[in-house]
Amino acid sequence: MTALRSLRLKKNADRRLKAGHLWLYSNEIDTGATPLKDFAPGEQAVVEAANGKAMGVAYVNAHSLICARLVSRDAGTVLDRSLLVHRLNQALSLRQRLFAKPYYRLVHGEGDLLPGLVIDRFDDVLVVQLNTAGMEAVREPLLDALDKVLSPRVVVLRHDTSGRRMEGLEGGVEVLGDEPPENVELEENGVRFIAPVLDGQKTGWFFDHRANRAWLNGLVAGKRVLDLFSYVGGWGIQAAAHGASEVLCVDASERALQGVAENAELNGLQERVAVGEGDAFEALAALKADDERFDVVILDPPAFIKKRKDTAAGERAYGRLNREAMRLLGRDGLLVSASCSMHLGMDRLTDVVRGAARHQDRHGQVIFQGHQGPDHPVHPAIPETSYLKALGVRVFRD
Amino acid sequence: MTALRSLRLKKNADRRLKAGHLWLYSNEIDTGATPLKDFAPGEQAVVEAANGKAMGVAYVNAHSLICARLVSRDAGTVLDRSLLVHRLNQALSLRQRLFAKPYYRLVHGEGDLLPGLVIDRFDDVLVVQLNTAGMEAVREPLLDALDKVLSPRVVVLRHDTSGRRMEGLEGGVEVLGDEPPENVELEENGVRFIAPVLDGQKTGWFFDHRANRAWLNGLVAGKRVLDLFSYVGGWGIQAAAHGASEVLCVDASERALQGVAENAELNGLQERVAVGEGDAFEALAALKADDERFDVVILDPPAFIKKRKDTAAGERAYGRLNREAMRLLGRDGLLVSASCSMHLGMDRLTDVVRGAARHQDRHGQVIFQGHQGPDHPVHPAIPETSYLKALGVRVFRD
Repeated sequence: MTALRSLRLKKNADRRLKAGHLWLYSNEIDTGATPLKDFAPGEQAVVEAANGKAMGVAYVNAHSLICARLVSRDAGTVLDRSLLVHRLNQALSLRQRLFAKPYYRLVHGEGDLLPGLVIDRFDDVLVVQLNTAGMEAVREPLLDALDKVLSPRVVVLRHDTSGRRMEGLEGGVEVLGDEPPENVELEENGVRFIAPVLDGQKTGWFFDHRANRAWLNGLVAGKRVLDLFSYVGGWGIQAAAHGASEVLCVDASERALQGVAENAELNGLQERVAVGEGDAFEALAALKADDERFDVVILDPPAFIKKRKDTAAGERAYGRLNREAMRLLGRDGLLVSASCSMHLGMDRLTDVVRGAARHQDRHGQVIFQGHQGPDHPVHPAIPETSYLKALGVRVFRD
Repeated sequence: MTALRSLRLKKNADRRLKAGHLWLYSNEIDTGATPLKDFAPGEQAVVEAANGKAMGVAYVNAHSLICARLVSRDAGTVLDRSLLVHRLNQALSLRQRLFAKPYYRLVHGEGDLLPGLVIDRFDDVLVVQLNTAGMEAVREPLLDALDKVLSPRVVVLRHDTSGRRMEGLEGGVEVLGDEPPENVELEENGVRFIAPVLDGQKTGWFFDHRANRAWLNGLVAGKRVLDLFSYVGGWGIQAAAHGASEVLCVDASERALQGVAENAELNGLQERVAVGEGDAFEALAALKADDERFDVVILDPPAFIKKRKDTAAGERAYGRLNREAMRLLGRDGLLVSASCSMHLGMDRLTDVVRGAARHQDRHGQVIFQGHQGPDHPVHPAIPETSYLKALGVRVFRD
């Protein structure tokens, strides 16, 4: 193997790495000593502190604000097939302890010490996102490693991610394997689903809310449920399968609602699951105008705060959404209010719910604070890896 | 009924109440207009904004930093038997939706709009804490209301709380009912326990970790488990009942370990549950000296940070505890790290775990972020009502 070049840090720029973090920002590099532009996108390098001490190996991308991500704390260990096999086995052993069936996020990037890599597993179909130039650069060893560890029948490479765009990588969707997958199935909390892995959102399914949905499933028997931003029915279909008397799934995407219909049929729940196509805010207004009431309203919107500068506008949007949704609850209802915006902490989401309840002179009781499931491990040094929140709020008039 | 006196706020001191909070601090009162010393401890008053607008009814205690707590947002509704019956029924209806069996926290103070009141239910035995002068003042209507709503066989009044001391109230334990309860039983996550309701910690049992224990129960089959600060075995006995091969419960209290033994016997688990009496840090050192290893270590210590000024020292104590505990884990172990200190947020506890893992050059993956159970509702305007955290952390060497 060719010896790696060095990437030299400025003084004190090693502190975050020492504390456990994996990222380096371009302003932390001693670019006089080691110019970033000398590195090919994705090239691996030995990270050195200002005093020359080796900190480990990172992959580099001069075109990204996060210009390097640590892949190993041993300067002699590079990210190659061998390390990938090791890390994949570590990730797999955790999931096998957690889940009886092979449907889960297998690799959650930094949380599994594989920065920039996301893999969702649907039995023998793997959906892979190579979100950085560094991961793109080890594409072939990674595919080899996956073959060794899991022998997947099909690998779907979802190149259509915002992460790739920021890293200057190409988009599109690529399918590897002997046949393109149709109707890729999964099971979550005992309910079957079809995930649109080729043309759905992200990898086709959101495994991250599994535990939050499991919690809600215990509280929906006999209830009338509204699932806003339903996508293909992760929350709504599960609620119906767990005894909800009536479920309305609302989404702006016709393709998503087609998925809801498929998933309802797959579970024999067509009679109790209805769909409505449209913008969530317009749907809320129309339901209010029709004087509709629900026992449970689920809000699982896309991230309203994608960047820190969007925080104020995003919080207003969450506020409006939660207020309007609360108006559709009966005298003693349950609001599930989720956010996948990492810039909106649990305390702020709680405050959104507080404001919405006060606005209507109702009382809110937060009876559940949920997070991403265990197949989305949080790296304790990287707050960005903890992004998902779900509040369960009893809302009542005194 | 006698008309209530007024409690006049300073200018802008109504903002927090308007936002949903229930507390008033003594420096927010216009004591020129309405001197606090004029109110008997626990006396109810109509709270008025600086402009004279009525905000609701609060009970007052001039001897407490929190000098008044709102009991109603309607100036005409006082805290009497009628309102207590209403609030108890609201609280009960939530628990009956949540739990199949009558073992839970029935009233969680502010979170159930009953400031200063805690009630744990063990079927027909209620353990009650009247933590404020305001609640003490409605003791008789409350006992009447409990009779109407639940007809308890026994009511245990645990007056031995720090809250009561701060409010200037007497201590002790009082039992009401036809016989003193012995061996009060409860069931949690399918496992039976005896709670020492007369002489145990707090109400005798900690229902707040129910959901966190349920999560852990799914991961302990065949594992060797250490339960530090075990009290009467809430975590450890449940782990044994869910298949742990061996459980060691450590506590400094002989009485608590006697409870562990009773609870092990109650579930036929004596063979797999051992106890060790002693200080947790000393026990950790001794186990390390004996080269003992565990698959799972549970840390559920008492609050190391009781007041904000204790934060730095408390964080050091949590840090030391987590470091020492991690040393007892095998190559790929699970640490459950809990904190009931409201001054230690989830982010800080995560940082404690991060530091402990780095200290030993291990990797930590946070695979669970748990909170207090749903029978401990959080009031969304009162961050103090959200106090419990439990992290599940996979700890491994790379």
